[in-house]
Amino acid sequence: MNQERIRRVIANMEAEGLTQMIVTSTASLYYLTGLWIEPHERMIALYLEDTGRAWLFANEIFGIVPPEGLSLYVHKDGENPVKDLAGKIQPGKLGIDKFWSSKFLIGLMELRPDMTPVQGSGPVDRARMLKDQLEIEALRRSSHFNDKVVEKVISQVREGAVENRLAAEVNRLYLEKGADCEGVQLVCFGPNGADPHHSADGTVVKPGDSVTFDIFIPFNRYWCDMTRTVFYREAGAKQRQVYELVRQANLAAIARIKPGVFLSELDKTARDIITEGGYGPYFTHRLGHGVGLECHEPPDVGNASAFPLEPGMVFSVEPGIYLPGEFGVRIEDLVLVTENGCEVLNQAPKDLQVVE
Amino acid sequence: MNQERIRRVIANMEAEGLTQMIVTSTASLYYLTGLWIEPHERMIALYLEDTGRAWLFANEIFGIVPPEGLSLYVHKDGENPVKDLAGKIQPGKLGIDKFWSSKFLIGLMELRPDMTPVQGSGPVDRARMLKDQLEIEALRRSSHFNDKVVEKVISQVREGAVENRLAAEVNRLYLEKGADCEGVQLVCFGPNGADPHHSADGTVVKPGDSVTFDIFIPFNRYWCDMTRTVFYREAGAKQRQVYELVRQANLAAIARIKPGVFLSELDKTARDIITEGGYGPYFTHRLGHGVGLECHEPPDVGNASAFPLEPGMVFSVEPGIYLPGEFGVRIEDLVLVTENGCEVLNQAPKDLQVVE
Repeated sequence: MNQERIRRVIANMEAEGLTQMIVTSTASLYYLTGLWIEPHERMIALYLEDTGRAWLFANEIFGIVPPEGLSLYVHKDGENPVKDLAGKIQPGKLGIDKFWSSKFLIGLMELRPDMTPVQGSGPVDRARMLKDQLEIEALRRSSHFNDKVVEKVISQVREGAVENRLAAEVNRLYLEKGADCEGVQLVCFGPNGADPHHSADGTVVKPGDSVTFDIFIPFNRYWCDMTRTVFYREAGAKQRQVYELVRQANLAAIARIKPGVFLSELDKTARDIITEGGYGPYFTHRLGHGVGLECHEPPDVGNASAFPLEPGMVFSVEPGIYLPGEFGVRIEDLVLVTENGCEVLNQAPKDLQVVE
Repeated sequence: MNQERIRRVIANMEAEGLTQMIVTSTASLYYLTGLWIEPHERMIALYLEDTGRAWLFANEIFGIVPPEGLSLYVHKDGENPVKDLAGKIQPGKLGIDKFWSSKFLIGLMELRPDMTPVQGSGPVDRARMLKDQLEIEALRRSSHFNDKVVEKVISQVREGAVENRLAAEVNRLYLEKGADCEGVQLVCFGPNGADPHHSADGTVVKPGDSVTFDIFIPFNRYWCDMTRTVFYREAGAKQRQVYELVRQANLAAIARIKPGVFLSELDKTARDIITEGGYGPYFTHRLGHGVGLECHEPPDVGNASAFPLEPGMVFSVEPGIYLPGEFGVRIEDLVLVTENGCEVLNQAPKDLQVVE
């Protein structure tokens, strides 16, 4: 158990008027206990009191050896997974982790009608939003590997290049550098780049295509996430103009980052540049998202994020312009908010590149 | 909307005494509506009455064009995602899909304290368990591709072979045959095979290793899932004995399959053979699981599955023996229950193979 993190979570519980809560997400449990469990359809729940006492309830199949100071209650397949938990909680409000499966919550409510479930992810989410030193070092390392991988894969954009082969190559390079697993990598040529979530398929590169790599993977549990767009053989005037707008939006948002500035202002800074350039309707998503033990986690970096930057936040800055039937451009870096500004975790070049 | 499937779901609702329910899982929504939406942290819910009337509630970001006869209510990021749904449901019991995120259920309970959530996945799960003709054809095709892929990748087990390179090769072969995506493929050499969920890593094959491929991917939404174990260069007496036991367990369980036999009997048939052979404690998991739009779905094929086989069920038969520090063997096929017995969807050979 990481007692310093537990202390921060408890302070957040007190601020929200919560005396008890359960933590169930894989990343949040790892953050607090050091145990990485992917429960799929089975149950695991850490029950935490504002006294600092904690109990873990889990299916025996996970084979958990609990860290010191944490009592473990195991259940088996076929037993009611929430029975022991129901015997431990206090009456009244109980904070519930946001993605806990309804089947468990309903089971708990049936056994404890005196319990009132309330939204309960905030205390851990807000603790996780401010990365500690160990986490910052892990995130720096992951993004450093990503810089190397994107450079190598860009050098492989040549005649006959196929989206899903390059995506597989990204995964191969990641594994070579020690990534935890393979992942779904976005590689988009030409008009495919106009869909920000296009999945790499059998498309072959053509001269004049934009080529977007949005690549992300965890190393030692902490994610990198970066996007670079280059052009194959030639870049027309419109492509150059759009690229430059996106690059300016990325740079301007990053230049605004320092403690106290609202997250929504970053989104606005980037969006204003793209709107003034005439492409506002084609920047169709928020500016970014937090990154850490999950690839998408708080804070949200969008126009509704009305709270201020704090040192230790790590998130993406990824403006884009998507022109249906033509091409797309996105440029994404991860940044760490520091006492005075920010540290950009990605160093891969952002100047316009025409390859081969 | 697939009206025949809706009718079967409604019959199942009536059998359970449910007059209203919400369906939220990606696969179940696709099964009923033809829409494939992966909502991640956002909300989508199909509200279904036992009258057959249905309404869909979804975030606008999904860009849904509703099928004929289905009314769509959209909400935006930042709005309360369950507000419209709360305005539509009736007081009393509401069936809730099992994996719906607690944050939405809690939000709905806050707006509608007169609603009582109950477990509500059964009606759709039981409909999906009995595959219709379109589904059966899709599943046959997926397993046919899997036969081809496993054969090719087994031919690549040679000096210097690395687990995670072979896993990447499986994905490459899947994409070549038109798979929907890449996946996490299990490739285990020697002692790694003693962990049934070992992730492919940088391990290099050694003479005398067992080599287990447990490979699975969707083609056109429907999954294949097969395991084959071979031996590299040599197989000792113990390896041959264990392999033969697992093969006999696989064959005997398959031979028992016909409508009316209990699922638990299949598990017992396989387990008895392995137990009589002296390796009972090393067969550490259930015999199998349903396969369809999800790689793991009902029915459970384990010792607690006290309900009978019916024509149209598709599931895995995958006995295994796992010897810590030594090696592991698992042999898995998908089967389709027919009127008189079963059709084995995998044709890849199961005789002991020593490669290279």
